[in-house]
Amino acid sequence: MADSPACASAAAPSTGGGSLLIAWQLKEKHVLIVGGGEVASQRIESVLTADALITLLSPTKGLHARTKELIDAHPARITYYDRRFSGPGEIHKMDMVLTALDDVNRSREICELCRKAKVPVNAADIPDLCDFYFGAQIRDGPLQIMISTNGNGPRMAALMKKRLQSALSGKEGEAIVRVGALRAQLKERAPGVGGALGRKRMKWMSEVCNSWDVDELRQLDDVNILKLLDEGWEKDAVPTLHQLKGQQKRNGPRASPSSNFLQSSNFSEWLPAIGSFALGAACTTLVFLARKR
Amino acid sequence: MADSPACASAAAPSTGGGSLLIAWQLKEKHVLIVGGGEVASQRIESVLTADALITLLSPTKGLHARTKELIDAHPARITYYDRRFSGPGEIHKMDMVLTALDDVNRSREICELCRKAKVPVNAADIPDLCDFYFGAQIRDGPLQIMISTNGNGPRMAALMKKRLQSALSGKEGEAIVRVGALRAQLKERAPGVGGALGRKRMKWMSEVCNSWDVDELRQLDDVNILKLLDEGWEKDAVPTLHQLKGQQKRNGPRASPSSNFLQSSNFSEWLPAIGSFALGAACTTLVFLARKR
Repeated sequence: MADSPACASAAAPSTGGGSLLIAWQLKEKHVLIVGGGEVASQRIESVLTADALITLLSPTKGLHARTKELIDAHPARITYYDRRFSGPGEIHKMDMVLTALDDVNRSREICELCRKAKVPVNAADIPDLCDFYFGAQIRDGPLQIMISTNGNGPRMAALMKKRLQSALSGKEGEAIVRVGALRAQLKERAPGVGGALGRKRMKWMSEVCNSWDVDELRQLDDVNILKLLDEGWEKDAVPTLHQLKGQQKRNGPRASPSSNFLQSSNFSEWLPAIGSFALGAACTTLVFLARKR
Repeated sequence: MADSPACASAAAPSTGGGSLLIAWQLKEKHVLIVGGGEVASQRIESVLTADALITLLSPTKGLHARTKELIDAHPARITYYDRRFSGPGEIHKMDMVLTALDDVNRSREICELCRKAKVPVNAADIPDLCDFYFGAQIRDGPLQIMISTNGNGPRMAALMKKRLQSALSGKEGEAIVRVGALRAQLKERAPGVGGALGRKRMKWMSEVCNSWDVDELRQLDDVNILKLLDEGWEKDAVPTLHQLKGQQKRNGPRASPSSNFLQSSNFSEWLPAIGSFALGAACTTLVFLARKR
């Protein structure tokens, strides 16, 4: 087995001090949530995202308005009991337990039961008892992003979230869905797991994703996917979207390059240049007029 | 308990189809990695980030160069055995198991043993057997970001990672460390858990993080923290970094506002405007010269 913790710490890698960020799978798994307040409502939403089946324990008087809404909206997903946590029997069928209680001692007790039963557990506000932490999250369809500051405060995680969101166009989720569709159709056309064909598929998919941008990828509708497989995969090439559209043009009327140019140009981007041009013209006119007098 | 899976699926929330993204804690926990190839080396690096103690099983001939390097670099963290997985006895002391084997059947076998022993497990390339998935990751000190496309291909995750990285200055980690230091010093000055004081502390920290930008936050050295607590927290205010520095200025020479302006302006940003100005001037000159003739 490994060295004792005390010995090991001395040689801890300089890259340490972090967490293992993972995407936990909860589809049709059973999650117990103890508590019904605001934090509990956030936990419910996180766990619904992962298609879990929730058992919720909380006296009705402790239910937050959002928790009530969620209970009403997802009767097949959330089984609600108007009572407190009663003991070890609540845990043994569970795949995960989340506590969101004001009572720290009760929370600590539940965590210890979970540890014994080897059920992953998170206790809101008691970090040292948790198997795992939550973080700030961004979701756009199949795209999920988590931001953790490893215990350095939720404020900075929220700030990072805002900054990362500004880098996304909101079209990434759509692009990922379309690339998923392309991948599925490619696998139908060239089936099999691993081997030389698997590597060739991976390499070609990789080249498409690297040479097309997000906005182009989301234009991969069924027609474009077929065309890309015919003109790209079959010919061992990666045509651009422009080239694919050029081929469509021969088959029917399409927007002309000039109208495309006008559409894709953002007028506001030109404003400073137009302003400067006008200012340059105006200044020169003034110089000439001054000279005339 | 909750409804049967079949019933529940029909009422699955529209937000479903995702994972539960979490930051798993592995400090001084025992992780078994079976396999020594390239994927195993990536697993080792992820797990070292979280300060785990690794037991690695792989015949020497199956070790990737990077895996060898890691074994040599972290003798107190990685206990390496030159042999294959031998049976259930390997698992019962483990907190997590990761397989990275070419042998799918062996991998499947190990996963089943883990499921029985309630040990979280990930099998590379066999998604349906995994308790959790890995994703693309960004790390900058205490800041960790994970990008998951929920099984829609690693290429798009890599593309998203690149896009998100371009939104970060690389100074966020430093800023988070300094905010952590501010938070710790504030807690020393105004100690206690929860209650009105806890809420006041949280509100003030929140205001500081919202009104200062990342580049300002990373300038929170010990002197500035002290000044911010004296001039901010104590007076129930949130002074700007400029205001704090203004106070320092009285105590010693600082860069003048005009030199700050020149430093912060990016000359290349002005080039298009300067070009347009010149073009406007040139065109107008030509018009005047043409008229003269």
